Amino acid sequence: MRLADLTERAGEWLRGAGPMHDVVISSRVRLARNLAGMPFLGRCTAQQQREIEERISREALTAEIAADMFYVDVAAAGELDRQLLVERHLISRQHAQGDQPRGVAVSKDETLAIMVNEEDHVRMQSLRSGLQLREAFADLTRIDDRLETRLDFAFHSRYGYLTACPTNVGTGMRVSVMLHLPALKMTGQIDKVFRAVRDMRMEVRGLHGEGTEATGDFFQISNQTTLGKSEEQILEEFLDRTIPNFVDYERRAREALLRRPVAVDDKAHRAMAILRSARRIGSEETMYLLSMVRLGANMGRLKDVSIKTVNELFLMTQPAHLQRVLQREMDAPQRAEARAAYMRKRLSLN
Amino acid sequence: MRLADLTERAGEWLRGAGPMHDVVISSRVRLARNLAGMPFLGRCTAQQQREIEERISREALTAEIAADMFYVDVAAAGELDRQLLVERHLISRQHAQGDQPRGVAVSKDETLAIMVNEEDHVRMQSLRSGLQLREAFADLTRIDDRLETRLDFAFHSRYGYLTACPTNVGTGMRVSVMLHLPALKMTGQIDKVFRAVRDMRMEVRGLHGEGTEATGDFFQISNQTTLGKSEEQILEEFLDRTIPNFVDYERRAREALLRRPVAVDDKAHRAMAILRSARRIGSEETMYLLSMVRLGANMGRLKDVSIKTVNELFLMTQPAHLQRVLQREMDAPQRAEARAAYMRKRLSLN
Repeated sequence: MRLADLTERAGEWLRGAGPMHDVVISSRVRLARNLAGMPFLGRCTAQQQREIEERISREALTAEIAADMFYVDVAAAGELDRQLLVERHLISRQHAQGDQPRGVAVSKDETLAIMVNEEDHVRMQSLRSGLQLREAFADLTRIDDRLETRLDFAFHSRYGYLTACPTNVGTGMRVSVMLHLPALKMTGQIDKVFRAVRDMRMEVRGLHGEGTEATGDFFQISNQTTLGKSEEQILEEFLDRTIPNFVDYERRAREALLRRPVAVDDKAHRAMAILRSARRIGSEETMYLLSMVRLGANMGRLKDVSIKTVNELFLMTQPAHLQRVLQREMDAPQRAEARAAYMRKRLSLN
Repeated sequence: MRLADLTERAGEWLRGAGPMHDVVISSRVRLARNLAGMPFLGRCTAQQQREIEERISREALTAEIAADMFYVDVAAAGELDRQLLVERHLISRQHAQGDQPRGVAVSKDETLAIMVNEEDHVRMQSLRSGLQLREAFADLTRIDDRLETRLDFAFHSRYGYLTACPTNVGTGMRVSVMLHLPALKMTGQIDKVFRAVRDMRMEVRGLHGEGTEATGDFFQISNQTTLGKSEEQILEEFLDRTIPNFVDYERRAREALLRRPVAVDDKAHRAMAILRSARRIGSEETMYLLSMVRLGANMGRLKDVSIKTVNELFLMTQPAHLQRVLQREMDAPQRAEARAAYMRKRLSLN
């Protein structure tokens, strides 16, 4: 398994299935861990950072976490490969941009990823399609247990797992769910969602996590604090209340739209027509149009495209993916033309 | 010939032919005349206004000006019919909105129209496709001569023809040419055109004359003064210098675009795709998109649509036409849906 093979398909989490997949794109759980007896990354010497990377990457590959785990040395990887990993949600932007020794271990189906030397020594994530937080958490518990038989993680009997940033202390767990809320946006109710998220002390972010704008009606909802709550409590809150509530809001907004479907039909058919005919198109407009096509398909108003294809196009038309798929490096104007050509081909009626 | 029959096709001037028709949509010449011995319209009694209308409409229909002339009593016509005449450029907006006895005599092919009791007692126009000012002027000279054998027009040996507004005194002639300048707009040079027009003491207006915005890259260029110049001088200026200059600018801008045609291709194909798939669309967006389709077709970048069809759609999708063609009265939101459906049908690939 090599990094280059990744672009042949989308990760498991983008297959457009799983519970509530009409609204929930994906579920992600991440645990932060640090090696006991080692300073946090910012206080490590370069030698210690190298040592940490070596130990963790070795254990990640040999602890029988998943079949076909492979490791990417992010520090040694080219700019394009690092961006590719970000676009696939396998590493964070911060991890891509760092300058310390660092890397990521990834399972073949991309549901599992273990970042080494991001903000913490270890950040493991499980990423799944639809609303599957409990399954994702079970994955991580298993990995965490396996790694703990070989590594000693910093743990305080009162505070829990110790992390570089105090917001992660405790369970070290972050739960995020990616939602597609186009109907709430179309009907002007999205601000209510944002207010509700804040009132519940959660965070809402764009497609690519911290510091990114919400584009194309995609919103990442995640917990803000990990201290003072058990993993079980955090999961329960998301699974039993938060997410079903948002899904319900969105579904009701879609039902309301269906009572006079011309607005959705107009947006969905225009979006599809533009994607099938543009001669150059930026990634942000693409995202917005695909969002409208996804809505139309999910509402049964667009018949000739599958959600799987739409999800794949979200990924494949992003800058690094596009360059890998088409096997040439391109600047933004060149990408805009290549993206349009690729899109026309993938969505052609035949 | 009845008014209702008009919507079966576009007028002769929209057939997309004639000299320089890639840039020049149409040429219009209009002469203003007033009956000698009668006050200007604003000073007439209602009785005098009725008398004027009766005399002129009778002569217009019997002077053998053209085969199948018919007369529309604009004061008695419904709102929709008046708007229809405006959209076809057969009467002015002012004429549609007045409250005096008034009307218009129209030739079957719509090249000739004689407005009665607009600002002046008589305003006759000839409207032709492409750059045909001399032909249009010849039409009017013939009509003017015929009418003068039966009517006595107010004429002053020093000032020329007398008109209600001093800007028309002299020849009483107004020359306007409708240009389609999308490439100059796309390449950001349209302001230069506006400056040139002003420097030449001409006027630039939108599609529907005085007080209308230039939408969809259509610009009406006309002379400002009629005093102190002969008809021949005014025509010569337009035919030999002004219009060929603008046509040349626009053609050069199109050639420049062709050097890297992706920008035009993108706009033209998107426009066509949207027109073929929208479920509701306003008249202004329609105008803009048709303008892009017309550009693409004229530049040989869009193959499956004729200029004749595009020109016809410009007319038939305007509010009053749409309602007449579809034979039902509709408010703006209803028209937006009906317009989209009509457009999809007319542009369908089959």
